[in-house]
Amino acid sequence: MQANTADTPARIGNHLDDIETPSLIIDLDAFEQNLSTMARFARESKIRLRPHAKTHKCVEVAKRQIALGAVGQCVQKVGEAEVLVAGGIADVLVSNQIVGDRKLDRLMALASRAKIALCFDDARQIEAASRAATRAGVTIDALVEIETGMQRCGVAPGVAASSLAQQIAHAPGLNFAGIQAYQGKAQHFRKPIERKAAIDAALIAIRKTLDALNDAGLACESITGAGTGTFHLEATSGVYTELQCGSYAFMDADYAANQRDDAPVQFAHSLFLLTTVMSVTGDDWCVVDAGLKSFSGESGMPLVHERPGLTVVGLSDEHSKIDLAPGTPKPRLGEKLLLIPGHCDPTINLHDEYVCIRNGIVEAIWPIEARGASR
Amino acid sequence: MQANTADTPARIGNHLDDIETPSLIIDLDAFEQNLSTMARFARESKIRLRPHAKTHKCVEVAKRQIALGAVGQCVQKVGEAEVLVAGGIADVLVSNQIVGDRKLDRLMALASRAKIALCFDDARQIEAASRAATRAGVTIDALVEIETGMQRCGVAPGVAASSLAQQIAHAPGLNFAGIQAYQGKAQHFRKPIERKAAIDAALIAIRKTLDALNDAGLACESITGAGTGTFHLEATSGVYTELQCGSYAFMDADYAANQRDDAPVQFAHSLFLLTTVMSVTGDDWCVVDAGLKSFSGESGMPLVHERPGLTVVGLSDEHSKIDLAPGTPKPRLGEKLLLIPGHCDPTINLHDEYVCIRNGIVEAIWPIEARGASR
Repeated sequence: MQANTADTPARIGNHLDDIETPSLIIDLDAFEQNLSTMARFARESKIRLRPHAKTHKCVEVAKRQIALGAVGQCVQKVGEAEVLVAGGIADVLVSNQIVGDRKLDRLMALASRAKIALCFDDARQIEAASRAATRAGVTIDALVEIETGMQRCGVAPGVAASSLAQQIAHAPGLNFAGIQAYQGKAQHFRKPIERKAAIDAALIAIRKTLDALNDAGLACESITGAGTGTFHLEATSGVYTELQCGSYAFMDADYAANQRDDAPVQFAHSLFLLTTVMSVTGDDWCVVDAGLKSFSGESGMPLVHERPGLTVVGLSDEHSKIDLAPGTPKPRLGEKLLLIPGHCDPTINLHDEYVCIRNGIVEAIWPIEARGASR
Repeated sequence: MQANTADTPARIGNHLDDIETPSLIIDLDAFEQNLSTMARFARESKIRLRPHAKTHKCVEVAKRQIALGAVGQCVQKVGEAEVLVAGGIADVLVSNQIVGDRKLDRLMALASRAKIALCFDDARQIEAASRAATRAGVTIDALVEIETGMQRCGVAPGVAASSLAQQIAHAPGLNFAGIQAYQGKAQHFRKPIERKAAIDAALIAIRKTLDALNDAGLACESITGAGTGTFHLEATSGVYTELQCGSYAFMDADYAANQRDDAPVQFAHSLFLLTTVMSVTGDDWCVVDAGLKSFSGESGMPLVHERPGLTVVGLSDEHSKIDLAPGTPKPRLGEKLLLIPGHCDPTINLHDEYVCIRNGIVEAIWPIEARGASR
C-alpha cells in the first residue's frame, strides 16, 4: 500500500550532517553495547532472553539479539510475527491475545515454519485457537496470561488460571507451555521502591498460580515477562524463567526519567531523531522540522541530545519548538539537532528505516519491516 | 521500504463487523457532508478554499475537495507535494519552510508539472530557493510567513515581512504571491472569546504587514491561513483571501472539546478507528486491540462512538483500556467498537489505507499515499 516518495535519506558513508531529516538514527556503538550488556546479564543470571520485537519491528535487530543468545522474539500482533518468520526468525511468542478466526488462521499458517506461542485469558479463545490449529494441522505452544496487578488483560491468578491451563492441556493443537506475567505499569513507576512492590505483587500472583497448577498435576515450563524498567527484579526472583525486554536496545526519555535503582547493568540512549533547524525568527526559541508525525508525544517531550540549554517545549504535527535558556547561543538555520524520543516503541512505528551510524558516519540502513503491522 | 504483510483489512461489500482491526474508517455520508458544507461555506463567503493535505495525506480526498471547488491543496513537506503532484493535483502550496538544497531541488522538480508555492521567514532561505529555482529553470510562488502570535515560525509582521517580500520580488525564479498567516494555537483554544482574540491579533499583524507592503509598492495577491477551529473568523475578516482548513473533513475528539461559537456551519465525526474487544477479564473494564500505534495519544483519550458508559482510560502501545460506568453492560469478547481519535492528523499518518463505509458496508478502500512522507 505504501508509496512514500521521499528519497533515500542517506547513503553508506554519509556524514551525520548529510542525512535528510527527519530520520530515525541508531548509534551503533551504543546499540551494540546495549545488546551485549543485556545478553551477558541474562546469561549470567541463567535466565532466557526473548526480546520484544514490538519495540524494534526489524528483522536485522532480531537476528542480532538472537546471535547474542536470545532464544527468540516476542511480538504483539500476527502481522509482526509474519514479518519475523518471513525474515527467518524460528521462535516467536505472541505475548498477547489474538481475537478472530482470520488472524488465528494467519498465525497457524506460520507454525509449519517456526515455533509459535500464543497467550490466553479466556476459555472461548482457547477453543477458537484449538480449532484453528486443527484446521491447519499444527500444534502451537499456549500460555495463560495472568493479571499481575496492572489491570489490563490476564485472567485472575490461581484456580482460574489453572482452569484455563487444564483446558489448554486437553485442547487439540495446543501445548500448555507456561504463564505470561508481564507487569507493564511497573516499568515506568519512577521510584525503585514502587517498581519492586509491583513485581513482588506479580510474584505472589505467579506463586498462587503455580500452586493451583501443581494441584492440577500440570508442569509449568515457562514463566515469562519483565521489561526494561524491572528486568533485574524478575531475573533474580527465582520464579521467572524468561525476560521479554525490548526498549533496552534503544532507551528513551521516559525510561531515562526513572530513578535509578540497584540494577546491575545500565543502558545508553542509542536511538535518536535527526532534525534540522528550520526557523530562527524567535528571540529565545528555534523550530526544528519534526513533530508528532516523527515521534510520539504522549510520554512527554523529547530531549535535545548533548545540547545543554535547549529544551523542547512544544510539539506540533511537523514542528518542535525548542526554547533557549538565557545565554544559550541560538542554533543556526539548517543546523542538525539530535532529539531523544519520549517513547521509543510508537516512535519507531512511524518510520520506514533506521539510519545506522558509527562515529557520525552512516554504516547501514535497516528497513523497519513491521512498521504499521498492527493487525 | 514498506513490507507490511498484514492482509487486506476488508473487501468491497463487507459489513463493518467483518473488517479486520485495527482499521481506520471513513463514514462516507458524514465525510461527504463535511466536504460539501465547507465548500458551500467558502463559496458563499467568497473566499478561496485550499484544504490541508497534512491531515488526509490521500490523493482521492484531495481530488474530491478540488471537485467541490477547492483551488488546490496545502502540504507541509516536499514528500507530500510529490505524492499529490504524482496523483494529478495541479496546485500545491507548501505552507511551511523547506530547508536544504536537496529538498528544494525535489520541490523545484515538481514546478514543471504543477503550480508550486512555498513560504519563507528568512532571507537566506529566499536566496537558496531562488538558486534552486534557477537551477531547475522554473518559477514558483513565494509567500512570506508572518508571526501571528503563535510564536513558532514566521517573521515579525510589518517592515521585516515587507523586507523579505521585496527580496522575493527581486529574486530570480520566485514570484511574490502573498502572506502566510496561520494561527495554529488558536484552533484549540477552548473558549470562542479566546479564539476570536487570537485571530483579531493575527489581523492586526496582517494589516501592519499590508501597510508596509503598500509603502514598498508591492501588491499582495493572497493572504492565506485558518484552520477548522477558527475558519469563519478568517472568512469574515475582510482580510484573508484563502482558508487552509484540513481537519473539517474528519473532526476529532480535540476539536469536539472546543466550546461551540457562532460558526455558521458545523462538522460531524467521519473518522473512526475500528477495534475489537480482545479481553474481558476485568470486572468493570474491557480491552480493545489498538493503542498508540493506531492513534496518537498526545491530545487526550479517544472517545467511544455511540456507546454511553464506555470511557477510554488507558492507552498502551497495542491496547486501550475502556472503563464501564456502573450498570453498563460489558461489551462481549470479539465485539467491534468504533473509537473517535483524539487528534486526526497524526492518527491518519499511522495508517496505510482508509476503509470507507456507507450505512455500515465497505464501499471503497483509499490508499494513504503520503503516510510517512515527512521529508
